[in-house]
Amino acid sequence: MESKKTVRVLKSAGEMQAAAEKLRHERKKIAVVPTMGYLHRGHASLIERAGSLADIVIVTVFVNPAQFAPNEDYARYPRDFEHDKAIIQAAGADIIFYPDVKEMYPDGFGSYVEVEKVTKILEGKFRPEHFKGVTTVVAKLLNITKPHAAVFGQKDAQQAFVIQKMIKDLNFDVQIILAPIVREEDGLAMSSRNSYLNEAERKNALVLFRSLQYAEKQIRQGEKSVELLREEMMKIILSGNPTQVDYTAFIDPVDFSETDNLNQSEILVALAVRFGTTRLIDNIIIPINS
Amino acid sequence: MESKKTVRVLKSAGEMQAAAEKLRHERKKIAVVPTMGYLHRGHASLIERAGSLADIVIVTVFVNPAQFAPNEDYARYPRDFEHDKAIIQAAGADIIFYPDVKEMYPDGFGSYVEVEKVTKILEGKFRPEHFKGVTTVVAKLLNITKPHAAVFGQKDAQQAFVIQKMIKDLNFDVQIILAPIVREEDGLAMSSRNSYLNEAERKNALVLFRSLQYAEKQIRQGEKSVELLREEMMKIILSGNPTQVDYTAFIDPVDFSETDNLNQSEILVALAVRFGTTRLIDNIIIPINS
Repeated sequence: MESKKTVRVLKSAGEMQAAAEKLRHERKKIAVVPTMGYLHRGHASLIERAGSLADIVIVTVFVNPAQFAPNEDYARYPRDFEHDKAIIQAAGADIIFYPDVKEMYPDGFGSYVEVEKVTKILEGKFRPEHFKGVTTVVAKLLNITKPHAAVFGQKDAQQAFVIQKMIKDLNFDVQIILAPIVREEDGLAMSSRNSYLNEAERKNALVLFRSLQYAEKQIRQGEKSVELLREEMMKIILSGNPTQVDYTAFIDPVDFSETDNLNQSEILVALAVRFGTTRLIDNIIIPINS
Repeated sequence: MESKKTVRVLKSAGEMQAAAEKLRHERKKIAVVPTMGYLHRGHASLIERAGSLADIVIVTVFVNPAQFAPNEDYARYPRDFEHDKAIIQAAGADIIFYPDVKEMYPDGFGSYVEVEKVTKILEGKFRPEHFKGVTTVVAKLLNITKPHAAVFGQKDAQQAFVIQKMIKDLNFDVQIILAPIVREEDGLAMSSRNSYLNEAERKNALVLFRSLQYAEKQIRQGEKSVELLREEMMKIILSGNPTQVDYTAFIDPVDFSETDNLNQSEILVALAVRFGTTRLIDNIIIPINS
């Protein structure tokens, strides 16, 4: 019988960094999975993916205040470390880096990493400082955990693109792995924020994936009009009684620019919709037959 | 007779990064000396300092366009790689990283590192985007050369403070070493920009160090009035017929804030003055007797 390894919890950046440096000296390959905790099966799939490509998996659990605007859900963002620890251990990770806010942002903190342009559209338009907070904390976490690879979820498609751009532009020596969206049985993309939804909202939120599936079907059948697709998607979304549709976007995955062109090799369709006070995002990558 | 090692020149970021990673695997301690080339004895002293604390010394030679404003001296900044290579080799370095602009800033580049607040005063007031360019290129160079230590000159006192802050805030695992200013026999601080000065300006520029020496003498003798010191320093500087005095500043080295208080343990006196079209900076750290 295989003895189950126990996951190690480190709270100090200095200790985590020293442990990572030691592991690199021992020629261990390290993969990191940055999370904000309150883990679900989507996160577990990222951790398992990390385990398949590295000797040591580090999961970071940190609700990053820098990526929330004052009017957003930082305070109510769900937290349950014991639950997270059990999931992380079961998924086979070796180390949890679990710093507190003072450890990551001590008094006088004032250095930021920012990616231009692509951070101003879509999510960045509705959450202006969001990506600055994301790239800053990811830069810090990469420097602290010293990974060879970092695994992110395709669910946050724009975030993944922004982080890849930062890594390339600033020469971080890290390979970025994107793992596919994991969905509930009924199609809702897994998200820690799903816990905010009441029963009616939870049911209504199914229109997100339904609208994406509609777009996929139409595009596979040769539809070339983004305008038409968006109109029909909007009807599906509105049938779910959302409080606001932030965007439905057609994006060229190569440079993450919005496009009306359905003649390249694939298209990313992404959306952000609010149900009650809960803002959900979802997306799908659709290959295009030409 | 010791056989002289030959310095290796690498121009590709990927090659440099792979070489640094290999050296780290071999447990070599790496120190980097970032420069903009056109090296003088001040740089040589940084390289020698690096050699005293590491197994491998990497000198980077790159005139970084991102830290020059459009109206500044990027185009005319002096360049002489063969001369630099000879100095670097003589000073005992192992590797020169000598990328071109496209290698560091390929088309579509758009990620920046920025330190807040301290970058807005003094140099930052006269050169608003300067430090953003500095911190971005240093972050890139640290990721490319993977050093254990990086050596910077005290001559650029504010730059050194800003870089230390970035390193700390973003958790770069690098020790910063500051090396003292090296001066010409007559006291002028060594600078690649001294080559811009004509004979009269070169002579007039001596008022910089003379004014700093004046401040040092007075403070050692117990002078406590920054106002008085600045007035007398200004007289000395103006006797050198400058085109403009950008600032004479009294700075608390602990947090790099301007101060009128001469009761802490030491004070940094820094100045920036233009002679003809050439902008020179200089500074001195003065211990305070209390």
